[in-house]
Amino acid sequence: MDTVKQQREWMKAHFDKMDNVQSDQQLQKPQPPLQKPYNENNEVIDLPEVNESILTKTNIFDIFTDRVSHRKFTDESISLEELSFLLWASQGVKDIKGDNYCTMRTVPSAGARHPFETYIVVNRVEGLKSGVYRYLALTHQLACVFEKEDLEEKIAQVTLGQKFAGKSAVTFVWSVVPYRGEWRYSVVAHKPMVLDAGHVCQNLYLACEAIGCGTCAIAAYDQKEIDEFLNLDGEDEFVIYVSPVGKI
Amino acid sequence: MDTVKQQREWMKAHFDKMDNVQSDQQLQKPQPPLQKPYNENNEVIDLPEVNESILTKTNIFDIFTDRVSHRKFTDESISLEELSFLLWASQGVKDIKGDNYCTMRTVPSAGARHPFETYIVVNRVEGLKSGVYRYLALTHQLACVFEKEDLEEKIAQVTLGQKFAGKSAVTFVWSVVPYRGEWRYSVVAHKPMVLDAGHVCQNLYLACEAIGCGTCAIAAYDQKEIDEFLNLDGEDEFVIYVSPVGKI
Repeated sequence: MDTVKQQREWMKAHFDKMDNVQSDQQLQKPQPPLQKPYNENNEVIDLPEVNESILTKTNIFDIFTDRVSHRKFTDESISLEELSFLLWASQGVKDIKGDNYCTMRTVPSAGARHPFETYIVVNRVEGLKSGVYRYLALTHQLACVFEKEDLEEKIAQVTLGQKFAGKSAVTFVWSVVPYRGEWRYSVVAHKPMVLDAGHVCQNLYLACEAIGCGTCAIAAYDQKEIDEFLNLDGEDEFVIYVSPVGKI
Repeated sequence: MDTVKQQREWMKAHFDKMDNVQSDQQLQKPQPPLQKPYNENNEVIDLPEVNESILTKTNIFDIFTDRVSHRKFTDESISLEELSFLLWASQGVKDIKGDNYCTMRTVPSAGARHPFETYIVVNRVEGLKSGVYRYLALTHQLACVFEKEDLEEKIAQVTLGQKFAGKSAVTFVWSVVPYRGEWRYSVVAHKPMVLDAGHVCQNLYLACEAIGCGTCAIAAYDQKEIDEFLNLDGEDEFVIYVSPVGKI
């Protein structure tokens, strides 16, 4: 039980620790980029403009009422318009403030640090080949990370055998780039980043409900396997949360 | 920087730790109650039924588009109907499964553990005296914790001097009862509970936008002071997130 009680400490606020620390922002070190640079040799795809008319359920009262977690998906594909909406709802950039100081998005983030990158593992999205893509939120585009067929088993494997994840049309995998938060909040950056990942995923749940899709978030994944799958170093960027999406 | 890098570990998934541990659920220990018992000598208030007609903005596309964090509130009160909607949207119970095994709520929670209690610090809610109340989600009621006037300075103090928090009509303060998650997930319960708190707060943001209110979540609070203010022991129950709400 001791280990368990130690873990509890992490859920608490420890902002007094900042009394003895200067963050890199306070030390006037350069700010990390708002978005991870992408390999310009890889294909970049313009996402269709976010289009309200594709929503099949718009009333937030109904959406709050009806939303449940879904682990069974049909074999249907989702459209690129639907994917565009889900990406925007969960991480879309509405504004950039200052001289690239911060983004304002469809979700809040502590100090507007928005420390995440969104990867999508595509099984069935109209117009996209099977593979892994990254959302370029600043320009509402997708960068292809790699194309690869038959990802069902791989997704189940990196989520500790959760087969439903492999049967998704598309699986959202959020990574965190911890320095984006640490630059401003140093030793107290980390709990807020986990809270922020919850904000993001909740908007995905609700956005799914608005377009006849469902999701069920996964915190129980194999950290090493999933980071390797996405070519993340596991230190300066690693997976923080996963949410498979499909038609229901 | 070493301390910072240690903190990163906490944001990762460590479900392999469960290979060597049996959770109290696996050991067939009794499950903790779905809701913290309340002092039956204290006043209990029936909340008005959740009523869709009070929403002034219902379209989720508009709500996603328009939501921003608000730190300036008017002096207006919110109605008990509005409070009822905000409590339901963030923690409302839609169903109870099994023999009190779990609740299904307006937000998802890992393993449907829903490890939170919702406290509200009331400054200006029609029909409620100034003070602290707890949401009894199972019966959609409020239990009075204590009445107390002039809480503005106290709220600002426990949030490390964030004066806007004291100027709220009502401040949501979520506590976590960690054993509810630990009973099932033992040493790996804690990150998922922080993610879940993010889910809850995101629904509050969106629900505020639907009724002409605003909020700005606070992770930077004084743990000891706020736990003492709410009479929490800081060990088996403590504050995990705070969100002041007001008319905008």
